Amino acid sequence: MLPVTIIADKRDGKQLSSTQIHFFMKSYLEGSVTDYQMSAMLMAIYMNGFNQEELSIWTSVMLHSGKVLSFEGLDGPVVDKHSTGGVGDKISIPLAPLLAELGFYVPMISGRGLGHTGGTLDKLESISGFNVHLPLDQFKKIVKEQHCSLIGQTGDIAPLDKRLYALRDVTATVASIPLISSSIMSKKLAEGIGRLLLDVKVGRGAFMKMLEPAEVLADTMIGLASEMNTAVNVFFTNMDEPLGYAVGNALEIEESLAVLRGEDVPQVTELVVEMAARVLHAEEMVSSHADGVVKAKEKLADGSAFERFLRISEAHGADVSQLEHPDKLPKASYKKPILATKSGYITEMNALSFGLGLIELDGGRRVQDDVIDPSTGFVFAKKVGDYVEKGEELYSIYHNNTKSLNGAFDIVTNAVVIKNHKVTSSLILHFS
Amino acid sequence: MLPVTIIADKRDGKQLSSTQIHFFMKSYLEGSVTDYQMSAMLMAIYMNGFNQEELSIWTSVMLHSGKVLSFEGLDGPVVDKHSTGGVGDKISIPLAPLLAELGFYVPMISGRGLGHTGGTLDKLESISGFNVHLPLDQFKKIVKEQHCSLIGQTGDIAPLDKRLYALRDVTATVASIPLISSSIMSKKLAEGIGRLLLDVKVGRGAFMKMLEPAEVLADTMIGLASEMNTAVNVFFTNMDEPLGYAVGNALEIEESLAVLRGEDVPQVTELVVEMAARVLHAEEMVSSHADGVVKAKEKLADGSAFERFLRISEAHGADVSQLEHPDKLPKASYKKPILATKSGYITEMNALSFGLGLIELDGGRRVQDDVIDPSTGFVFAKKVGDYVEKGEELYSIYHNNTKSLNGAFDIVTNAVVIKNHKVTSSLILHFS
Repeated sequence: MLPVTIIADKRDGKQLSSTQIHFFMKSYLEGSVTDYQMSAMLMAIYMNGFNQEELSIWTSVMLHSGKVLSFEGLDGPVVDKHSTGGVGDKISIPLAPLLAELGFYVPMISGRGLGHTGGTLDKLESISGFNVHLPLDQFKKIVKEQHCSLIGQTGDIAPLDKRLYALRDVTATVASIPLISSSIMSKKLAEGIGRLLLDVKVGRGAFMKMLEPAEVLADTMIGLASEMNTAVNVFFTNMDEPLGYAVGNALEIEESLAVLRGEDVPQVTELVVEMAARVLHAEEMVSSHADGVVKAKEKLADGSAFERFLRISEAHGADVSQLEHPDKLPKASYKKPILATKSGYITEMNALSFGLGLIELDGGRRVQDDVIDPSTGFVFAKKVGDYVEKGEELYSIYHNNTKSLNGAFDIVTNAVVIKNHKVTSSLILHFS
Repeated sequence: MLPVTIIADKRDGKQLSSTQIHFFMKSYLEGSVTDYQMSAMLMAIYMNGFNQEELSIWTSVMLHSGKVLSFEGLDGPVVDKHSTGGVGDKISIPLAPLLAELGFYVPMISGRGLGHTGGTLDKLESISGFNVHLPLDQFKKIVKEQHCSLIGQTGDIAPLDKRLYALRDVTATVASIPLISSSIMSKKLAEGIGRLLLDVKVGRGAFMKMLEPAEVLADTMIGLASEMNTAVNVFFTNMDEPLGYAVGNALEIEESLAVLRGEDVPQVTELVVEMAARVLHAEEMVSSHADGVVKAKEKLADGSAFERFLRISEAHGADVSQLEHPDKLPKASYKKPILATKSGYITEMNALSFGLGLIELDGGRRVQDDVIDPSTGFVFAKKVGDYVEKGEELYSIYHNNTKSLNGAFDIVTNAVVIKNHKVTSSLILHFS
């Protein structure tokens, strides 16, 4: 079998056989298929797609290129949550300890910020000492003892995905539904989970701008998961405006801590509670979704989810005094309030602009090796649907120098639109 | 400008700007665009194509990546001929010295065998001492003195094409009209010629099986050439059956010598004379095509074209006694005649099968580094349209061992079809 004929088949829109996919991927791992042959293949897949059968084989080969964890014999369901990426999306940070406190086991392997979207690992690393690079045996130990651990992708988990991801990033083959879904699912299925909560972001700050392709992506991932006996629940959520009131690494940790302490942070608390309730109900640990909501809120109100997060963080080497006293988290030197130039209702807050603005503030990466400033970002005083008086604060920019402030302000200056008529937007578009 | 966004534009079917193409190609030559990025780009070009403007820029960048020769101040037109590749296609070998003798200058940079098709360089190298790897200054000197020199591609001529060609070969991006035409024309236009005779092969032994895509390819190349002020004449010729009576490196030199000595070798002499007449007429060196035919035949009949080939070969270091006494050329140890199993008219002789059969006889390459056996091949006793009696010889296989004989025979055994009714085939489909 010649690699070049396998590329030619996909180029010509033919279905690849299981033997062809296995041979091609194995040869790539061993080095007899080169990066330049794989990138030609990735472009052919990007342009001609995969059918369900090919995608399932491709994903399975990626999944089994590394270790597949197993959490047999635990006294609760093993679950995880994945978001397709957004701006201000800190949901994993309060949700993971809440699920742990509710009796689930959460072995969460997360990613870093990508383009204008933030990453859970970057946010956690704004907590002094929090180590997201634990070996797998320690990860498993923390999951067993604390019900939850949060780490980054290791060379042991789906190493083929790690190589393909780096290659796709520089060959314009990222935005492909089969390649995205196989990448996500090969990592998530390697966690040994029984259920995955999928948060598909839709809107101008998301990878998917419209609901329709987002549904195709979700269906593709559900199909892959079901073949591997993993249940999936999907939330389609609005990413036209940033999620919650904070955008920026330490600022989002602070907002997550508020949720965990039982404060009702609009949008953030809502989504965390809805998701926890959905999993509780799906696993038949409550008799209705409403009961799930009550139970999740209890764990936030009584401080037990917060305590759980402290213990998880401690197990990761974090300085928990920063979590008990959030004023000890990294702080920007300056705060610049931005005021409304007219009165009216806020109809738009462009999530993409705030995501790109955070990069200008060094809170995100331009290139892979950039070091992140955890202290900078935006805190909103108002959100879409709110009324604002001329001269009232819209949001503040947290920054460490005038140059980055100006760069960020240039990008976000037209991100907020004020009109005479109130609009309403819903956070959760629908879920299943 | 980011290379990845340029790949993305071509992936999405957008027209690339001159700046984008120049930046991408320059970065590739310098190493900041990698092979794996170029191969993703090549696949995107394969699938989405180029418009005339993009193709012209792409070709121009390839052309100017190396030296562009100039033959100003010579006393005759500078011309060359290129074939898209066939089986038994030795036309360049008698045609080049004939054109030289007719007053043209022919700086011919040729290729090696590719897949099942033969290559001029391989054929010339079956003449002992014939050096096809001369430095460019020596090449130019022989062109000026002998009106003709034949060499292989050097690192100085279109080096970008050399790199892209190697990459395309292993990434399933060879069979693309813009990539083929830019590859051919960047090399041919670098020769500094004023006119190119293009022999587009059509049929089962050619890259183009049907006339229609062959015409698209030809039109594309004509368009490219005219932008660079180079005239093109195109012949579309039949490659369903092998060209002439010999397939194999030394065997084709022998057949070429027969043409040059004035023998009327069906198909081969015809095409050589037609092509020479076409160039004579196009350059207004004769008043009609018919006059050109007469003039070309004269130079073959009087032995002057043959003498010219001896002098050119001598300038290349060849042992010309082999050309004066062709029995001194490499000879296979065995000749196996294949006889007709029934009487009738020959309706098919599959050129592809004989091309592949030659590889089995080690007269072509399986992989790039294979060493060619110049002595082996096929000599036909009959061709399509001929009547054959059962038991009469169809062709002979020249071989050096039974294993390769059997391998070749397995492939060509069904290549010749004999039926009751005569068919006629024309060699020259049309020309312009």
